[in-house]
Amino acid sequence: MEGVKKGDATRAQIVAAAAELLDSQGYHGTGINAVLSKAGAPRGSLYFHFPGGKDEIAVAAVAQTGEGIRAALVAAFERHKRPEAAVREVFQIFEARLVETEYACGCPISTVSLELSGTDSPVLEACALAYESWTEEIARALEPQLGRKAQDRASLILSLVEGALLIARSTHSLRPLRLAERHCAELIREA
Amino acid sequence: MEGVKKGDATRAQIVAAAAELLDSQGYHGTGINAVLSKAGAPRGSLYFHFPGGKDEIAVAAVAQTGEGIRAALVAAFERHKRPEAAVREVFQIFEARLVETEYACGCPISTVSLELSGTDSPVLEACALAYESWTEEIARALEPQLGRKAQDRASLILSLVEGALLIARSTHSLRPLRLAERHCAELIREA
Repeated sequence: MEGVKKGDATRAQIVAAAAELLDSQGYHGTGINAVLSKAGAPRGSLYFHFPGGKDEIAVAAVAQTGEGIRAALVAAFERHKRPEAAVREVFQIFEARLVETEYACGCPISTVSLELSGTDSPVLEACALAYESWTEEIARALEPQLGRKAQDRASLILSLVEGALLIARSTHSLRPLRLAERHCAELIREA
Repeated sequence: MEGVKKGDATRAQIVAAAAELLDSQGYHGTGINAVLSKAGAPRGSLYFHFPGGKDEIAVAAVAQTGEGIRAALVAAFERHKRPEAAVREVFQIFEARLVETEYACGCPISTVSLELSGTDSPVLEACALAYESWTEEIARALEPQLGRKAQDRASLILSLVEGALLIARSTHSLRPLRLAERHCAELIREA
């Protein structure tokens, strides 16, 4: 039997491997075998930690990715006095991601969201919770400057980031992202 | 042997079925068998019309969908004097689509684009050509009013539409789309 610590480490490896595969291959393109092989975990450990199988792993992976981005947003807004500087930093992280992965990876949960849209999958629910938490954090950071406009602007900013990443990935161009970055700064300053 | 007309009709049915399935299920979720069964076409006709198999069908389907939306954009901009009215009409078509399909369908090629991003698939190339043609038509329609700002604004508008549809589909809410619609009208008027 695995000890508690070793078991926790195995679980964490499976979740991390699934998060990476869902990011680059999407939901239908990610098989259980690929997750196990990437995690270097035996099949038995998978069903021990995730009796619900693929969907239970995917929910944990999306939740972890979503929380990572939420925490990164909070940290960026804390690091920068002006929220537009924090938003620019976030854009630059995504720009680096596009370049490093040759446009394979942008928002790590967007492919999964679209594949599962229209279903009642718990994985889609996890995606929705992530988007809502990101919008909340952006709105919270904009509130001192934008007041009651903060919530709407946060929603527009998230739509712009997601849409620009989608077009950038499809057309192999950073231009949509750079235009979106500049416009988001205007959306924050102009209000 | 099929006559020319019957063969053309079969080909068109296969492309239409593929377009519909790629829209709602994405690339990895769409199998050749499902396309055949939806099209009511025999397997032999598929390889007769599409010796390249699934990718050749998907390229034809994405190109047809892309051309349909491009033509709809041109028609909307011709029908309305003010380009913001045409853009509003396009948003309302997508809003109706979300509601009718219970958030299963938004932009009909976005799921495929994200699934294939980072690959050198000809299907991804077809998606990129579609996005570029839509941006061109929007820019052309904005040019008389916005001059040299038209191209950048067209790119922002496409990013907003795509991102808002993605978040709307994921969160089962029309709010991101309505905010994006209002902001696109501002982007056209304000320039």
